[in-house]
Amino acid sequence: MAEEVPFDFLHMEMINFVFNPPDDSKKEVKTEEGMTTLESLGFRVGQGLVERLTKDCPRFKDELDTMKFICKDFWTSVYKKQIDNLRTNHQGVYVLQDNKFRLLTQISIGKQYIEIAPRFLSFTCGLIRGALSNLGITSVVTAEVITMPACKFQIQIPRT
Amino acid sequence: MAEEVPFDFLHMEMINFVFNPPDDSKKEVKTEEGMTTLESLGFRVGQGLVERLTKDCPRFKDELDTMKFICKDFWTSVYKKQIDNLRTNHQGVYVLQDNKFRLLTQISIGKQYIEIAPRFLSFTCGLIRGALSNLGITSVVTAEVITMPACKFQIQIPRT
Repeated sequence: MAEEVPFDFLHMEMINFVFNPPDDSKKEVKTEEGMTTLESLGFRVGQGLVERLTKDCPRFKDELDTMKFICKDFWTSVYKKQIDNLRTNHQGVYVLQDNKFRLLTQISIGKQYIEIAPRFLSFTCGLIRGALSNLGITSVVTAEVITMPACKFQIQIPRT
Repeated sequence: MAEEVPFDFLHMEMINFVFNPPDDSKKEVKTEEGMTTLESLGFRVGQGLVERLTKDCPRFKDELDTMKFICKDFWTSVYKKQIDNLRTNHQGVYVLQDNKFRLLTQISIGKQYIEIAPRFLSFTCGLIRGALSNLGITSVVTAEVITMPACKFQIQIPRT
């Protein structure tokens, strides 16, 4: 447990901070606004991480090869496990399924947190988008909770 | 490197976010205000972490015993190394020295970041205070950069 937990707790407090800023103004943060903030935080972390991880890597063969790297090496470096399932329509859409997504496990007991579960995916959407961006792939990443702690990340790569 | 870096990057982006909020208001965040925010974030992370870490621990003998736990187990779980030096005046003041503090290593090349280095210690001050608080010890924690990446954390426990 030791090495994983600090990241999880920090992630959780960041969500808390984004949605409940310690401002005097007591302004309410809209769900969408907060999720955008978390996404952009994740984007920058993803950029930084992938730069480190691929420092000594040869160039990836193609898009699918890059996705496999995200599912294996990249995911393992952050979440200590691989993506369980990768699907693609071979037209620029990839679906990554994690059957036990670490950032959801803490809130997966009972159904009380199901409404705020999407907040726990935004950072990671950004993380993927940032990583891909630094590998030269522009994408749109969305996420969906299946049955907690399982979830799916969908990556769309616009064909130009 | 793999397991340490996500936490470090997240920590760095959190500092960035706290000091440069993506608000329309473009309000300037005062150094002290931002550091207080980071400290309280760290406080809650410290509380959560220490709860997990001490779940199956016997009760600590005394204050010094608790400090040794912070310097060894707690520090290792977050920063992958122990505190290098622990000193005390036996009157409620403890000084923890880390000669290669992980959150400073990224900004330790050259002297360009020396001014903002204290921002990289606030979270950890809170982390220590939160951990101690959950172990029943009320404290005041301050930090000081020595020569980057070395730094000192001073814990003061008010005698009642």
